[in-house]
Amino acid sequence: MYKAPVDAIGFTLKHVAGLSGALDEGLLGDLSEDLVDAILQEAGRFASEEVAPLAEIGDRQGARLVDGKVVVPDGWDGLYRHWAEGGWNSLVASQDYGGQALPHMLNVAALEMWNSGSMAFALCPTLTMGAVEAVTTHGTDTLKTTFLPKMVSGEWTGTMNLTEPHAGSDLGVMKTRAERRDDGSYRIFGQKIFITWGEHEVTDNIVHLVLARLPDAPAGTRGISLFLVPKFLVNDDGSLGARNDLHCHSLEHKLGIHGSPTCTMIYGDGKHGDAAGAVGYLVGEENKGLACMFTMMNNARLAVGMQGVAICEAATQKAIAYASDRTQGRAPGWTGSGMSPIIEHPDIIRTLLTMKALTQGARAICYACAHAIDMSHRAPDETRAFWAERAALLTPIAKSFATDCGVDVASLGIQVHGGMGFIEETGAARYLRDARIAPIYEGTNGIQAIDLVARKLPLSDGEQVRGFIGELTGIADAVRAANRDGFGGTADRLEASIGDLADATDWLMARLKAGESAEALAGATPYQRLFGLVLTGAYLAKGALAEEDIGRQQRIALCRFGAENLIAETAALKDRVINGAASLAAAKILLS
Amino acid sequence: MYKAPVDAIGFTLKHVAGLSGALDEGLLGDLSEDLVDAILQEAGRFASEEVAPLAEIGDRQGARLVDGKVVVPDGWDGLYRHWAEGGWNSLVASQDYGGQALPHMLNVAALEMWNSGSMAFALCPTLTMGAVEAVTTHGTDTLKTTFLPKMVSGEWTGTMNLTEPHAGSDLGVMKTRAERRDDGSYRIFGQKIFITWGEHEVTDNIVHLVLARLPDAPAGTRGISLFLVPKFLVNDDGSLGARNDLHCHSLEHKLGIHGSPTCTMIYGDGKHGDAAGAVGYLVGEENKGLACMFTMMNNARLAVGMQGVAICEAATQKAIAYASDRTQGRAPGWTGSGMSPIIEHPDIIRTLLTMKALTQGARAICYACAHAIDMSHRAPDETRAFWAERAALLTPIAKSFATDCGVDVASLGIQVHGGMGFIEETGAARYLRDARIAPIYEGTNGIQAIDLVARKLPLSDGEQVRGFIGELTGIADAVRAANRDGFGGTADRLEASIGDLADATDWLMARLKAGESAEALAGATPYQRLFGLVLTGAYLAKGALAEEDIGRQQRIALCRFGAENLIAETAALKDRVINGAASLAAAKILLS
Repeated sequence: MYKAPVDAIGFTLKHVAGLSGALDEGLLGDLSEDLVDAILQEAGRFASEEVAPLAEIGDRQGARLVDGKVVVPDGWDGLYRHWAEGGWNSLVASQDYGGQALPHMLNVAALEMWNSGSMAFALCPTLTMGAVEAVTTHGTDTLKTTFLPKMVSGEWTGTMNLTEPHAGSDLGVMKTRAERRDDGSYRIFGQKIFITWGEHEVTDNIVHLVLARLPDAPAGTRGISLFLVPKFLVNDDGSLGARNDLHCHSLEHKLGIHGSPTCTMIYGDGKHGDAAGAVGYLVGEENKGLACMFTMMNNARLAVGMQGVAICEAATQKAIAYASDRTQGRAPGWTGSGMSPIIEHPDIIRTLLTMKALTQGARAICYACAHAIDMSHRAPDETRAFWAERAALLTPIAKSFATDCGVDVASLGIQVHGGMGFIEETGAARYLRDARIAPIYEGTNGIQAIDLVARKLPLSDGEQVRGFIGELTGIADAVRAANRDGFGGTADRLEASIGDLADATDWLMARLKAGESAEALAGATPYQRLFGLVLTGAYLAKGALAEEDIGRQQRIALCRFGAENLIAETAALKDRVINGAASLAAAKILLS
Repeated sequence: MYKAPVDAIGFTLKHVAGLSGALDEGLLGDLSEDLVDAILQEAGRFASEEVAPLAEIGDRQGARLVDGKVVVPDGWDGLYRHWAEGGWNSLVASQDYGGQALPHMLNVAALEMWNSGSMAFALCPTLTMGAVEAVTTHGTDTLKTTFLPKMVSGEWTGTMNLTEPHAGSDLGVMKTRAERRDDGSYRIFGQKIFITWGEHEVTDNIVHLVLARLPDAPAGTRGISLFLVPKFLVNDDGSLGARNDLHCHSLEHKLGIHGSPTCTMIYGDGKHGDAAGAVGYLVGEENKGLACMFTMMNNARLAVGMQGVAICEAATQKAIAYASDRTQGRAPGWTGSGMSPIIEHPDIIRTLLTMKALTQGARAICYACAHAIDMSHRAPDETRAFWAERAALLTPIAKSFATDCGVDVASLGIQVHGGMGFIEETGAARYLRDARIAPIYEGTNGIQAIDLVARKLPLSDGEQVRGFIGELTGIADAVRAANRDGFGGTADRLEASIGDLADATDWLMARLKAGESAEALAGATPYQRLFGLVLTGAYLAKGALAEEDIGRQQRIALCRFGAENLIAETAALKDRVINGAASLAAAKILLS
């Protein structure tokens, strides 16, 4: 059973991602290391002891649509309420609406633990937090005072309604429409698909954020507006009013995250009204809905990255436990009697260390991204723009690298279990089934790669990414200067990989400047992977260099393993970026 | 829906794997290219039109245990009988028992198509064919005449019973026991798990091959004997006699291959008898059971490799169809009106080409392995030992590389589908669920890697593998000599990768000679992958060089894509083999 790795999480936050520095500089208000530790400890306890034990039943029963109501798995109702009562929904929210105004770093660390416990369960608050953020940033005062307090506390949940059957990655073609009403409200008509936790009975109300198009809106993405559409209208005194005209038409039958209802939502068809449309309230300005949604999507992307980290951690723990227990064969050098635990076999050792290193790399990247987000709000004014760019640069890497690792590590975890890994009762297979959606939603990892190359590399005319690569070089230099035996070839290898990253970056920026976007985009995915691997090597090294005695030997050993066994792939990835496009274009004939 | 790629299969058999050469040399009896084409054509039709349409219902309904009987999915009963009536079970079997004595290459090509149609369905005959082979090679004349004709025709199916709860990869610790009886028969007692198609009502009888231990047997793997244990005993006149005392206790609830019943089998507990044991007949000699089983396991491993190829092909077809149809966004250079099909986006092109190249590489490796098996029986006497070694060398690579590709390609296929890939009704997710068992059973891919390094590299004191690498170098030379524009950097890159393989091979053999097996085995899995990638590059080139005009431009383009985008990873893999072991040993402290 999953046990939250509170020490590793706390260490990574403080010594790798930048939390201790921010605390020392007084950028985080009253927050202290002790409070951080206490929060992590309690989140870890809740995730391990309360969430994780209900994951299996959630997967097995799944969410079901019974007589028009969405029924959640046994025990999840109480679990959610208990979780919300613990204040976990409000960590980062504004104090104006009952939030705790803690840094994103802490929330992201907690999200890791909820998702390790049960990704299907954690999706519900993940969506609510996104909705809170969008309303906080773009909503009118009336909307804020009416909806935010109950959304922040978790008494009501929130959703994001973007996708339609023909509008997924390309939202510009969506058809859901909105009509203005004289009272300043709007009426919404249309169908949305893939709506996570779009309907349920766990809370009294659900607050939907819905993208739709006004009659006179410009075509494409510039004609999309964002609306808040509650399941129940709210009276002036805050009590619940009429049922709004929206409902869940059906649930998807999915590969994983079975406990999370994935809904097709219908707005304004008259099922709960007179077909005059579902009542909605504008969030932000008309036709500026996509910008509002993107505010929240950046954080949502990081939250999905955390799902990848979470699955990595849980799958690794499970595999190590199994490999320690299961005996089979005699490993080289095994001197015990009878069969050795399979964890003694070199091939299993390699597999488990690979899982551990990728988990820690993905975690560090995601936490560093959260740190950059925090600094973009809390650092001295003159550096906030820098940190916003850093967060923007890191977001696609955090989302894609961590979710790809989630799939890979879950698959390796099954492999370690041998035949038992294929049996559902073992639980290893669930991690792969759950993990597989994360590289897809909130923008596929291919879309993330396009974002990284086409929009993030050009930030500050390339100075943001160049500066970042310079920081990474500093880490490699520090490893060399430390000159410790345990690091083995880390300095050389890290330097070489950073060089690959720099070369690939320069080449891509030159293509973009020359307007050769097809050539640049052909290498976007290998580049994104290359960046993630380099960051894994660099952050493992940063952790190994930290002045913190406990666990240092282990951190150095993992850093060396990563450097000598995982990151050499950057050379081939750079080659693919720089030299791969021509053969790709030539081979297109194979696809017609 | 899957459409068997009969032309690509035929081309690969003839011009890459060696079928045309063997035909020209007259090593394959009456077989002609026309007959090969006719067989492939009809197998392709059956797989596409009859097997594939029943795959989805097989996955959804699964095999069920109802009132002690195993019920197969709707339509599978008739499908199996129709398939067997077509003679497909008997392609390679001996003519003495009604077989067609065709080369393994043809059967392997047909297996690819059955598995692309439905891997769960194809498992049934795959196991029967293995049982036929074991009985043909090691059975007494009485066993052969009693059982083989009906097993060859497919009227009865066969199984392999190896695994027990504590004896998986390490069969030496199995506990199922056998007792001698005065009439020369034996009685079997014990429990076996993970028995594929261990029980069903599709045929009148099931012939189980069961490993068990005699009372006076030596400990470990040298004390295991093989027994034929039929579900119904057979009277002297060939009619069915008493029910034997064995039964299916339960079915596993698995990630995939739902249509295939995975049984826990109980022998001799008295449920169908007087608890005097299940009647069994010795196959081969007492205590030599493992050797008999291994005869059949080598071919079974190749058959599992074909499952990987099959999933690759089917998943790739599905992804290409979806990407051609689904429109979203505007790809660079897209001049059509509205959104472009996603197949125009460079990142999707890269993904689909990667899927195509890995599919074709895995296919060629497996077919080349089948060719080596055929030559080990049919080539002039003086070269048979050479071909047996070649088959032995290729088997672990074929099994592991193809099944790893199956998982990777199925996962990429889901990714191409975006959100739809996660919805079970789409069918893309089933390929991943089915594919995931193949790297595990018939010896995990980690076990294959140990076999490759520890047992196959030393064949003929290393001359077998060195000779093979020399042949691959010849292919790179031929690409260079061809000097065609379309090949791009293929010659250089293939040469470099072959050099990586040669270096890694030399290093591993030096470790083995020095008795440093832990160091050698630490790099076994990266080495196995390295070998598979080099073979992929080499066989794509061999196909591209073939004197066959139709499709040549496409073959050259795919070869170049593979050379310039996939095989450069060999440098990192070689590095991992040669330099990875020290950090792996140092990091073991992380796992305690």
